[in-house]
Amino acid sequence: MSSAATRPTGEDDLWSVDQHLADILATVQPLEPIELQLLDAQGCVLVEDVTVPVSLPPFDNSSMDGYAVRVADVAGASEEFPAALEVIGDVAAGADDPVRVGPGQAARIMTGAPLPPGAEAVVPVEWTDGGLGEGPAGGMRARSLAPEDAEGQVRVHRPVEARAHVRAEGSDVKAGDRALAAGAILGPPQIALLAAIGRGTVKVRPRPRVVVVSTGSELVQPGEQLGHGRIYDSNSFALTAAARDAGAIAYRVGAVADDADTLRSTIEDQLIRADLLVTTGGVSVGAYDVVKEALADIGDEDVPGSGIEFRKLAMQPGKPQGFGSIGPDHTPLLALPGNPVSSYVSFELFVRPAIRALMGLTDLHRPVVRATLTADKALRSPKGRRQFLRGRYADGEVTPVGGAGSHLVAALAHADALIVVPEDMESVEPGTEVEVVPLG
Amino acid sequence: MSSAATRPTGEDDLWSVDQHLADILATVQPLEPIELQLLDAQGCVLVEDVTVPVSLPPFDNSSMDGYAVRVADVAGASEEFPAALEVIGDVAAGADDPVRVGPGQAARIMTGAPLPPGAEAVVPVEWTDGGLGEGPAGGMRARSLAPEDAEGQVRVHRPVEARAHVRAEGSDVKAGDRALAAGAILGPPQIALLAAIGRGTVKVRPRPRVVVVSTGSELVQPGEQLGHGRIYDSNSFALTAAARDAGAIAYRVGAVADDADTLRSTIEDQLIRADLLVTTGGVSVGAYDVVKEALADIGDEDVPGSGIEFRKLAMQPGKPQGFGSIGPDHTPLLALPGNPVSSYVSFELFVRPAIRALMGLTDLHRPVVRATLTADKALRSPKGRRQFLRGRYADGEVTPVGGAGSHLVAALAHADALIVVPEDMESVEPGTEVEVVPLG
Repeated sequence: MSSAATRPTGEDDLWSVDQHLADILATVQPLEPIELQLLDAQGCVLVEDVTVPVSLPPFDNSSMDGYAVRVADVAGASEEFPAALEVIGDVAAGADDPVRVGPGQAARIMTGAPLPPGAEAVVPVEWTDGGLGEGPAGGMRARSLAPEDAEGQVRVHRPVEARAHVRAEGSDVKAGDRALAAGAILGPPQIALLAAIGRGTVKVRPRPRVVVVSTGSELVQPGEQLGHGRIYDSNSFALTAAARDAGAIAYRVGAVADDADTLRSTIEDQLIRADLLVTTGGVSVGAYDVVKEALADIGDEDVPGSGIEFRKLAMQPGKPQGFGSIGPDHTPLLALPGNPVSSYVSFELFVRPAIRALMGLTDLHRPVVRATLTADKALRSPKGRRQFLRGRYADGEVTPVGGAGSHLVAALAHADALIVVPEDMESVEPGTEVEVVPLG
Repeated sequence: MSSAATRPTGEDDLWSVDQHLADILATVQPLEPIELQLLDAQGCVLVEDVTVPVSLPPFDNSSMDGYAVRVADVAGASEEFPAALEVIGDVAAGADDPVRVGPGQAARIMTGAPLPPGAEAVVPVEWTDGGLGEGPAGGMRARSLAPEDAEGQVRVHRPVEARAHVRAEGSDVKAGDRALAAGAILGPPQIALLAAIGRGTVKVRPRPRVVVVSTGSELVQPGEQLGHGRIYDSNSFALTAAARDAGAIAYRVGAVADDADTLRSTIEDQLIRADLLVTTGGVSVGAYDVVKEALADIGDEDVPGSGIEFRKLAMQPGKPQGFGSIGPDHTPLLALPGNPVSSYVSFELFVRPAIRALMGLTDLHRPVVRATLTADKALRSPKGRRQFLRGRYADGEVTPVGGAGSHLVAALAHADALIVVPEDMESVEPGTEVEVVPLG
C-alpha cells in the first residue's frame, strides 16, 4: 500500500505522518453513488451534472401583488388624474383559469401568478386605490372576506413601462442550462435550486457508515460502577461524535475486551454496516495488544493491499497505528492507539480525511493557520517526531492547554486547536510563529 | 412584543431589521433542559456544572508497555551491564489480580495498567531484553502465544527515576474539580471528558424541533408533473435543510394550498412536535395571502404577546414578515415571505438566531467580515432599506452573484456569502469595503 522507496527500512524505523496519510488516501476510494431523496442528500457530493429541465420561472409572472394592465391604458396616470380600469377578475398563484386583459381592463394579480394574456405589465396595489375608490391602497382585502374586490373598477395612480414588475420566463435559469455541476456539495441553497427545478431525488455519494470499536479489558461503560484498575471508555464516544461531525453516519459498538477471537468476530459482525472501521487501543508493543494480535495476519495473500499493517509513526501522540482493509469487500480499517488524546489526534489526522475521501470531497483537510505562540516557557518536542499539542487559538495567538501527556482528556476538552511542532524542532520559544489547526 | 418607543407610528412605516430581530429574541426562550444520553447530547449546551466524581486517572498507572520495577534494582544498569530481575507475572490493563513487586523483582506491565504495590517506576520494554535473553526488545510477544514471557528473567538496560513512565492518580483531573461549566457546548472532546469521568447521561438543552410549512396553491412537489402556472416547492426543502444545519431537528411538512382553514388545521396538528414553526409565503399584501389571513387574529387577548404580528421591514429582500406565538404552549412562529431568496435570507437573519437561542447558545450570529467589493459597476440599493445581496467571498474580496431579484435561486446556489448594504447607502462603488456574512 506504499511505494517501497519511502518505506522505512529497519523494523524500528518510523513512518512519516505524511506518508501514512498518503497511503490511507491512496487506498480509500469514494463510495459508489446512489440516488437519494433531496433532503437525504444534504451535505453530500453531487456526482451528476444537473441540467435544468424547465426554465425557471417556467412562465412570465408577477413580482408584486397588484393589477395586470396594458401599458397604454395607464400612460400619464397620476393620483390626481388616475386611469380607471375595469377589473375583470383575479389571477392567483397556482390558479389555472386564465383571464384575458383587453383594452381598458385590468386583472387583479398576485405575486407569482402568471401574467395573463393581453397584459403587458403589473401595477403594484400600492400605486392604485385597490378598487375601494379612496386614496392609495395599503394592500388587498382577502378574497375570502371581500370577493367583490375582484370586480368593479380600479383607479391606477402611476404609469408603468412594459414588463414592469414582471419576472420573465427563464430569467433565473433556462431549460438546458447546467444547474449544478458534478462535485457540488449540497447545502441548503443547492437543495433549494434542485427542488426549484423539480428534482425530487439526486445522485450523490452517500454519507459513509463508520463503525467505532474501542478495545481494552479495563474499559467500563460510563454510568456503570468503576472496579479496581478500570477506567471509563471514552474513545468510542468521542470518535463516534467526531465521525458524525466529519459527515459520517457513525455507529458506536463500544468496548471489546482484550481477546483476539472476540474482537475478530465483533469486527466480522460489523462489516455488514461499515464503510469504514475504526478501532482504538491494542496496537502497541504490549503482550495484550489485541487489535494487533487479531488483525496482523488477516490479509489474503492473493489480494494486493489486503490485511492490516501496523506501523510506528514519527509523531507524538499517536506513534502506533494500524491501517489496511478487511473482509470480502476490502472495507478500510484504521486501528488507532488507545490513549484518549492519541486516538483523538489520530482521528483528526487520518480518519477525518478518510471519511471525507469516502464522501467524494476533494477538500479533505481542516484549514491550517499560523499563530504566535503565547506561553510561559518554551515548548519541548521530541526530535524527529511531529508533535501535536492542544491549545486555545484566538486573534492570531495560540496558548498551550495542558501538557503533552496523551492521557490528558480534560485539557483536550478545554482546547480548540492543535499546535503543530515539526519534526526538526525540539524547542519552540514563546513569540515564535507556529502552525495551528483550529478544531470544530 | 416591542417597546412602544421604537414601534413605527404609521401603518406603512417600516420596522428596522434590528428591531424585528430584537423582538424575536426577546420572545424566544431557551428550551427546558433534559437529561440525555451522551451521544444524543452532541452539539447541545450543558446546563449543569459537571464535577469530577473520581480522579482521572483513578489510580497510578503505566504510560508504557514495560516492566514495573524498584528504582534501586536498576540503578546503574546499562546494555553492557544489565540489571537482571525476576519476572513475577503480568499486570494487564483491567486485570484485578494484583502482584507485589519485591526487591530484585519486576512485573511485566501494560500501558494503562495499575502500578503494582512495591514498584516505583516503569522501564519501557525497549530498554530491556524483553525476557528473551538477547538484545533490546522491539516489543512484547502476545500473552496468548508466549505465556512463558510473563515469568523468568528480564535484563534491564537503563536505570529509571522514581515515578518514571507512571501517570499519577488525578494528574488529568481530580475528584471535586469542575470538569465542564454550564454553558459548554458538547463537541467530541467534551464528550470524551464526560465519558472519561463516567457520565453516561448529561443535562442539556435539547435540539429544537422545527416544523417547516410552505404555503401556496401554485406549489408542486419536486419530482411530480408541473401544471400550467405552477412552480415547484423549494422553500420547504431549503429551510428544512437550513434548520438542520443550524442545529435543529427539522420536519418538512411541505406545501399547503392557499386556504386559511387548511393552513390553521395543519399548524394546529403540527404544534405537538414543534418548538418553533416556520411558514413561507402568504404574508404580503395580496388577496390570497393565506398565512396572514389564517394567523392575523389567532392571538388570545388575555395573553400578552400571544398571536402573530405582521410587519413590513426595512430590508430587501424580505420586506413582509410575521412573528409571534401560537397554541396553548405559545409556540413561537416565524412567517417568512414566499420568494425563495427572501425566505432564505429571512431564515438566515431571523430563524437561525432563534434556533440557536432555543438551544441556549449565546453566540447567535454568524461572524461578519469586511471585504472589498469587486464588481463591474456600482451596486444599487433602495434608500432606507438594508439590502442583502448574494456574493462569492474569498481572500478579502466579495463579488456579487446574480441580481437583486428575490426569485433568483440559481444565483443563490452559486453564492457563499451575503453582501450587506446598509439602509443609508443607495450606491456602492467597486473597491468599497462592505460588510459580508459568509454562509455555511
